[in-house]
Amino acid sequence: MAFKQAERLENVHHSQMRKIFGLCNELRKRGEPVADVTLGQPNFPTPQYIKDACVQALQEGHTGYADYSGIPILKEEIIKKIKRDTGMDYGPDEILATTGVAQGCFVSLMSFLNPGDEILLPDPVYFIYDNCAHIAGAAIKKYTLKEENEFQVDIDELKSLITEKTKMMVIVSPSNPLGASLTTDNLSEIAALAVEHDLIVVTDEIYDMLVYEDPKPVSIATFPGMRERTIILNGFSKSFAMTGWRLGWAAGPEYMIDPMNRLAFYMTSGPTTFVMHAAAAALRDEDGSCEMMRKEFDKRRRYLVEEINKLETFSCLAPKGAFYIFLNIKKTGMSSQEFCEYIFHKYSIAVIAGNIFGSSGEGFVRISYAACDETLKAVVDGLQKADKDF
Amino acid sequence: MAFKQAERLENVHHSQMRKIFGLCNELRKRGEPVADVTLGQPNFPTPQYIKDACVQALQEGHTGYADYSGIPILKEEIIKKIKRDTGMDYGPDEILATTGVAQGCFVSLMSFLNPGDEILLPDPVYFIYDNCAHIAGAAIKKYTLKEENEFQVDIDELKSLITEKTKMMVIVSPSNPLGASLTTDNLSEIAALAVEHDLIVVTDEIYDMLVYEDPKPVSIATFPGMRERTIILNGFSKSFAMTGWRLGWAAGPEYMIDPMNRLAFYMTSGPTTFVMHAAAAALRDEDGSCEMMRKEFDKRRRYLVEEINKLETFSCLAPKGAFYIFLNIKKTGMSSQEFCEYIFHKYSIAVIAGNIFGSSGEGFVRISYAACDETLKAVVDGLQKADKDF
Repeated sequence: MAFKQAERLENVHHSQMRKIFGLCNELRKRGEPVADVTLGQPNFPTPQYIKDACVQALQEGHTGYADYSGIPILKEEIIKKIKRDTGMDYGPDEILATTGVAQGCFVSLMSFLNPGDEILLPDPVYFIYDNCAHIAGAAIKKYTLKEENEFQVDIDELKSLITEKTKMMVIVSPSNPLGASLTTDNLSEIAALAVEHDLIVVTDEIYDMLVYEDPKPVSIATFPGMRERTIILNGFSKSFAMTGWRLGWAAGPEYMIDPMNRLAFYMTSGPTTFVMHAAAAALRDEDGSCEMMRKEFDKRRRYLVEEINKLETFSCLAPKGAFYIFLNIKKTGMSSQEFCEYIFHKYSIAVIAGNIFGSSGEGFVRISYAACDETLKAVVDGLQKADKDF
Repeated sequence: MAFKQAERLENVHHSQMRKIFGLCNELRKRGEPVADVTLGQPNFPTPQYIKDACVQALQEGHTGYADYSGIPILKEEIIKKIKRDTGMDYGPDEILATTGVAQGCFVSLMSFLNPGDEILLPDPVYFIYDNCAHIAGAAIKKYTLKEENEFQVDIDELKSLITEKTKMMVIVSPSNPLGASLTTDNLSEIAALAVEHDLIVVTDEIYDMLVYEDPKPVSIATFPGMRERTIILNGFSKSFAMTGWRLGWAAGPEYMIDPMNRLAFYMTSGPTTFVMHAAAAALRDEDGSCEMMRKEFDKRRRYLVEEINKLETFSCLAPKGAFYIFLNIKKTGMSSQEFCEYIFHKYSIAVIAGNIFGSSGEGFVRISYAACDETLKAVVDGLQKADKDF
């Protein structure tokens, strides 16, 4: 009895964000205010035209099984978006609709990594990649994204990590939790290494529509020799305020999408049918809602960056994309975890400790500016007060 | 290049049902009629009260992240259903909402089976179990469900398959593709063996509300020593005509649900939020739609059983549940596959070859009576004609 879990789950833990979520809920239950900037979720509702499309799909009876790799009208819109953004042509068999980018990540790693294979992951990065690599039994090697390098990939370090066992590399740009984008030059060097060492590259582009500065980041899939080895992951959660809808996609060469499709089928039998219809409409009938939200995030970004960099104790780089600020708290002398507890208990501000995204995140905390203006104002007020505590 | 898929996918293939689905679509495109009884999907739309609840959840803004193990109001209704049906008490931490029973199956096997562990699967069975076992790297042993035993488990055979490596057993009752339910006596003997050999039992009860004869099947979880080793899988697809909604659940002791929950999170980050709200309403506000559908299926079942057993060449047992007839075609002298092609091309009837559910399914084809009366009438007409061909 008390059956032992499979070995693949040994290093797979619950999200460490659960603790701070729980603390926030306790405060809220007691009716006490908390400036909660923990969540990577737009504070906007899903745009009405997408909800309307979902209702229409329901009423039209799209409630049964559908093509589990993605319905044709959805694939068509995804293909158009990729063409628009990158100039690249993809066919329907090169697209897989996924139950969020989470499933895209899971199937990418599980479809190609055998136990013992090595995967290169950024440090810091959203922890889903580490956990999926553990489940696949792959050995993780981390390349570090340092603030002093403006969170760019150190190509010499990357080279030094590649062995004969290295099979895959993940890049996330714009980055969660960093808000940084990799430059075209940096991507070009990464691409050359990937081609040289015959690596599969998984590029998580979920924040591709949430960028604020020129030049806009490009997809690594567009570099020479890359299309045939790149899996692009993207989805609707962030740019369309559809986190709870659970829909994303993977794009890649058919010989990679096919095994991913087989695996995904036995995981979930496809995404929710009417959600796929609504998602097709989200892309097809885009009414300016995404750009409205992006502009709003940009305003908040500018406000936070300006206010934070006036302080003595705290600082941050201006994020290029996504909706995160990776706040440098090193001058407090506290660990990320200690600082999170300190600012939560003293100033009722909830942030995420940087170290849960990897050891390079130590000395930082993540602030999401997907929260409302009032909350961000409270965060700035709290930081201004905390500034004098150190 | 042409990157090799991970070894865990070597024996994981696309559904073999895709071929007949494709043939049906070709006929339909040409405007030719086809009596298609391949699909395990009610021909009813999702009941209106469930669609209404979904629309309401959308309009109320339940479009963001939610508790990924299942929202509390959904778990509450699932707990009540289990209590109602089995008398057993489950707590919220013993329930996991899943993206369909597919995900329930995947996480059950992947959370407990290491490569080399043995799993006992029924033969025939819906092929998702074989594929999930392959992905987990488990060795599959099949216990056979034979028509001459009324598709009950042969306990002596089952005993002979258990070794020191046997860790898990799957039962599906009522069964897809058989339509048979395991009797209380049969389950009692299986339970005793499971306790004796300390096996985890996964019981797929997706068809538990679609039963037609007394005594109603009971859950194996209710037998002595079983609750602590049983994972119950169930969902909304079949009884509530919600196949495309992708929502199910797993129920079991917390020490089993916890690792499954961790795995499920990294697979999908939870089911669609507003679908969980609608599913809670499906259980809470049940308005008689399920019983209406069940009665309709029962009428069709009686019609088919009666008409089929008038024939010389074909015969079937009366199914006790689900919505499948496992038609014995042995007197044709054809293989299941040959017969499928024969009846498709000669009489425009589309059925599923029994052997794709396992070698014991050879000599049978699966007919789904989730199809409309007109289609079933065409199937009977075709079988009557084919009856004279042999």
